[in-house]
Amino acid sequence: MAYVHGYDERANERLHDQARTLVDLLHDDTAYPAGSLVLEAGCGVGAQTVTLAQHSPQARFVSIDVEADSVAAARRRVEAAGVTNVELRQADIFALPFEAHSFDHVFVCFVLEHLSQPVEALTILKGALKPGGTITVIEGDHGSTYFHPDSAAAHDAIRCQIDLQRAAGGDSNIGRQVYPLLVEAGLEAVHVRPLMVYVDASRPALVDGFTRKTFTAMIEGVREDAIAAGLIDPERFDTGIRDLYRTTEADGVFCYTFFKGVGVRAA
Amino acid sequence: MAYVHGYDERANERLHDQARTLVDLLHDDTAYPAGSLVLEAGCGVGAQTVTLAQHSPQARFVSIDVEADSVAAARRRVEAAGVTNVELRQADIFALPFEAHSFDHVFVCFVLEHLSQPVEALTILKGALKPGGTITVIEGDHGSTYFHPDSAAAHDAIRCQIDLQRAAGGDSNIGRQVYPLLVEAGLEAVHVRPLMVYVDASRPALVDGFTRKTFTAMIEGVREDAIAAGLIDPERFDTGIRDLYRTTEADGVFCYTFFKGVGVRAA
Repeated sequence: MAYVHGYDERANERLHDQARTLVDLLHDDTAYPAGSLVLEAGCGVGAQTVTLAQHSPQARFVSIDVEADSVAAARRRVEAAGVTNVELRQADIFALPFEAHSFDHVFVCFVLEHLSQPVEALTILKGALKPGGTITVIEGDHGSTYFHPDSAAAHDAIRCQIDLQRAAGGDSNIGRQVYPLLVEAGLEAVHVRPLMVYVDASRPALVDGFTRKTFTAMIEGVREDAIAAGLIDPERFDTGIRDLYRTTEADGVFCYTFFKGVGVRAA
Repeated sequence: MAYVHGYDERANERLHDQARTLVDLLHDDTAYPAGSLVLEAGCGVGAQTVTLAQHSPQARFVSIDVEADSVAAARRRVEAAGVTNVELRQADIFALPFEAHSFDHVFVCFVLEHLSQPVEALTILKGALKPGGTITVIEGDHGSTYFHPDSAAAHDAIRCQIDLQRAAGGDSNIGRQVYPLLVEAGLEAVHVRPLMVYVDASRPALVDGFTRKTFTAMIEGVREDAIAAGLIDPERFDTGIRDLYRTTEADGVFCYTFFKGVGVRAA
């Protein structure tokens, strides 16, 4: 039948939504060819590393982070997963221990948001690329957050995280800037796609896995710092968190958008 | 090659983006089977009617609007396009001149945002459906708007439109509520998809066709009413509009999201 909203297709979409985790959303169009050497810059504790390496089993990855503890945690995670195509090293993006033109591709996820000089970082990473190689950047954007029922207190609580990130030199609203950042760093053929997370009660895996345990838990995590910094009253913050949880009820809706961009180093 | 961000695919995506109009985005998964009878409720001046009917050439449409002038304009538009499967009638959603269970499907686009009783409207429209028929709802959400460079003045100008709509009994942030509205009206198997419009300089057709001529032009259109209502100073409003146009420059980005939901009347 020509009508595309048939029951079967809807049921399939639902199953897909529920199986789909945040990691799937971020990674499902990233796969590197056999034999390519990929730099994962700023791997942190390896939250993306295993998925990244498993999606490209015949590529080799060098995953770096500036923090030794994070590198150790990422190494444990990679070993526990039985992944063998990742080499972990402690290294600073701003003092890369590699020769120029060493890598076929670079992957950078949830890193630029922490940096006061994101264009400089991308320019350095571009220098590590072979001509024709790509940089892939994934960033969230807290300013993309909206929900039902709406709540000024919830927006105030989210703003605490944004203000703390800014005070630390970063930018929690960087997702929307991925296109201009890649262009300014001199990448070519830049293409950016939004990856929107839309959550309503028909998608219970996202209600629990994203709204509750990813986003709201992250905002809850800045409570003490936000209060200590005088950014908000405890009562107002707690009202905001309560209102974020309110969006996980049967009539609630929650929206957030990540941005994924790819640019090419000129051949 | 396994790497999915090849040049060819990127080039194809770009051509697609540029050919893609707002109408394509809204309609490209709506097609009704041959012989079905579809009610377009609140057709206005027929902005969606021709596309809707052309996508389902073997379905028949009854398109209604409460305003006689709008119906006349829609009729001229349908006739100019040579579309013959649409009947236009002046009628009020809240006093439908049809027998219960008359229609196979109902289509409602940019209508609920204007109504103070959207659930009641959907409940009435559900009554016009045969058992097993669908209602499709499309609404925008002005609260989904964000951009780079960010601008508090631009958000203030947008808020004028939202406040004027609210004063008129409507809700410009209704898009995110499509899921709970359809559920509350008693529709079943409700499924909602966000339709996000992401605009950067690599998508010039959207820069011009959406950011400039659709969204910013719409906000500009409330200037006199907003100033007359005392919602904003002229200077602040004009700064906001200037900042919205600023997002159309080479390093600018603009984001907006429509929501499209489908629900089924129980068999």
